[in-house]
Amino acid sequence: MDVEIEATRRFYDKLRKLYQDRLPFNRLLGIRVDALNADGGTMAFSMREDLIGNVFQHTLHGGVISAVLDAVGGITASASLQARAAGLSEAQIEAMFARVGTIDLRVDYLRPGKGERFSASGRIMRAGRKVAVVRMEMHANDDRLIAVGTGTYMIG
Amino acid sequence: MDVEIEATRRFYDKLRKLYQDRLPFNRLLGIRVDALNADGGTMAFSMREDLIGNVFQHTLHGGVISAVLDAVGGITASASLQARAAGLSEAQIEAMFARVGTIDLRVDYLRPGKGERFSASGRIMRAGRKVAVVRMEMHANDDRLIAVGTGTYMIG
Amino acid sequence: MDVEIEATRRFYDKLRKLYQDRLPFNRLLGIRVDALNADGGTMAFSMREDLIGNVFQHTLHGGVISAVLDAVGGITASASLQARAAGLSEAQIEAMFARVGTIDLRVDYLRPGKGERFSASGRIMRAGRKVAVVRMEMHANDDRLIAVGTGTYMIG
Amino acid sequence: MDVEIEATRRFYDKLRKLYQDRLPFNRLLGIRVDALNADGGTMAFSMREDLIGNVFQHTLHGGVISAVLDAVGGITASASLQARAAGLSEAQIEAMFARVGTIDLRVDYLRPGKGERFSASGRIMRAGRKVAVVRMEMHANDDRLIAVGTGTYMIG
Repeated sequence: MDVEIEATRRFYDKLRKLYQDRLPFNRLLGIRVDALNADGGTMAFSMREDLIGNVFQHTLHGGVISAVLDAVGGITASASLQARAAGLSEAQIEAMFARVGTIDLRVDYLRPGKGERFSASGRIMRAGRKVAVVRMEMHANDDRLIAVGTGTYMIG
Repeated sequence: MDVEIEATRRFYDKLRKLYQDRLPFNRLLGIRVDALNADGGTMAFSMREDLIGNVFQHTLHGGVISAVLDAVGGITASASLQARAAGLSEAQIEAMFARVGTIDLRVDYLRPGKGERFSASGRIMRAGRKVAVVRMEMHANDDRLIAVGTGTYMIG
Repeated sequence: MDVEIEATRRFYDKLRKLYQDRLPFNRLLGIRVDALNADGGTMAFSMREDLIGNVFQHTLHGGVISAVLDAVGGITASASLQARAAGLSEAQIEAMFARVGTIDLRVDYLRPGKGERFSASGRIMRAGRKVAVVRMEMHANDDRLIAVGTGTYMIG
Repeated sequence: MDVEIEATRRFYDKLRKLYQDRLPFNRLLGIRVDALNADGGTMAFSMREDLIGNVFQHTLHGGVISAVLDAVGGITASASLQARAAGLSEAQIEAMFARVGTIDLRVDYLRPGKGERFSASGRIMRAGRKVAVVRMEMHANDDRLIAVGTGTYMIG
C-alpha cells in the first residue's frame, strides 16, 4: 500500500517537474504548477510587461492565454494516465508523457486579461484509451473568469 | 487618387508596426510581418530554444503555435477594416485597431512543429459589421503544414 | 412588482414556444423545452429510428447531437436577454429573438449516443452587449455524459 | 491492375451507399453523395420547409448545417482509408467504416442559409494512423459561402 502511495506521489512529482521546470516555453511564461490529481491540474502565473498583447488596455496577449490553457489541458490529460503507470519504470512513465500531444484546442476569450496573477485549471471530461477531452478555465486574481477552453489530447 | 494610395499604404504600415514592433508578446516571440493586404496577412518567426514545448522531440510549444495563429488571425481581421479607414485620422485608425479582439480560436495541431523557420498566414472568410471570421495556416520551412486554425474576431 | 413577474413569465413562455413549437427543424427532432431561466435552459428529446447515425451501434447521429446542443445554446443566449426586455412590446421582444444567431459552435463527442431519452442544458459563460458565450452538455437517460459543446452567439 | 481499380471502385461505392442510403438521419435530411475520392467528398441537399431554423428569415437551421458538415467530414475521413482497404474483405471494410467516429467538430456560420440547394465538401488536412483532420465548406446554389467547419475524426 505504502509502495503504491509512494509511486503515485512520484508520478505526479515527475509530471509537475516536466511542466514547470523542463518545458522551455512554460518557463518563459513563468508557469507554476499548484495542484495535480487524477481529475486535473491547476497552474498559476504572474502578469509581466512582455506578456501584454493589447497595449491600449494593458491586457494579456491572447496567445499567452491559449498557451497556458493548452498547458493546463495537457497536464490534466497526462494526469489521467496515473492508473496506467502502476508498475512502470521511470523511463516508461517518461515515454508515456512524451506521447501526450494536443490534437486540437478551442479558446473562448470572455473578458480582458487584466490582473496581477492568473490561475488556470483543467477538468477531465473523458479519458479514453487513445484520446482525452479536457475543459479548462482561467481566472484573474479578482476572481473574474477570463477565458474558457476545450482541448482534445492524444494520450495513447 | 495618389492620396488614397498613400492612405492605404499608411494604414497597412501602421498595422504592421503595431503587430511587429509594439505588441510586447509578439516581440518576445520574434514575430515579423511579411505581407499584408485586404485578404489577409503573413507572418514569420524562427525556432529558438525557449519556444520549445516538447523536450523529447525538440518541437515548438503548442502555445507558440496558437499565439502566432491568433496574431495572424488578428492582423487579418484588422486588415479587413481598410475600406472603413478612408478619411479617418491617425488617432481614429488607432482606435479602430484597439477595438479588435479575439472572441474565440480553434487550433488543429497537424504535425510536429519541427523546423528552423515558420510562416503563418490568414485568409478572411467573412468580414461583417461587427465580427470577422479568419482561417489560418502555419507551415515549416520545409513546406510541411504544421497547424491550421479558425478565429472569430470582434472588429466593430 | 406583479407586473414585472408577469412580464418575465411571458418572456420565457414566448421563448419556450419559439424553440419548441415554431422552429420546424426543432419540431422534426422532437425537442421539448423543460426549463428556462436567466442562467440557461434545458431541453429533452427521445431516441427515434430516424435519428440514428451509426447503424452498426444504433446510436444518435452526430448531427442530431450538434443540432440539439446548438438549440439549447441558442435558447440560453436568448434567455440572457431577459433583463433587456423590460418595457418592450411583444413585437419588440420577437424582433430581439429574431436577431439571435449562432456565430460558431464546437461539439465534443464524448461517448456513444445510446439511450432512450436525452437531455441537454446550456449555461451562460458571458453575455456581452453583442456576443454571448454558452457552454452546453448532453446526457443520456442513464446519466452518461454524451457530449459537451461551446457556442458563440450574436445577441445584439 | 484491373482488380485494383475494381476494388477501389467498390470501396467508394460502399462508402457512398453507407452515407446516402443506410444512415437514417442522413436520409431524413435528404443528403446525396455527389463525388468521392481520396482527397474528400461532396454532398448536396435541397431546402425543405422542415429544415428551417429561423422562421423570421426562412433560413436553414444551424443544426442542419452542422449535421451535413459533420457528414461530409466523416465521409472524407473514411475515404482517406482507401489505401488501407487493399486486400480486405467486404466485412473487414465495413468494420473499418464502423470504427470511424467524430471526436470533435467546429462550425462557423458565415452567412444566412438561404437558397434552394446546398452543397458541402470536405478536404483532408491530415490522415494519421488513428486520427484524421478535415476542413469542410458549405455553399448555397448562388455560390455564397454559408459555413465552414473543421472536424477531428477517429479512423483507426
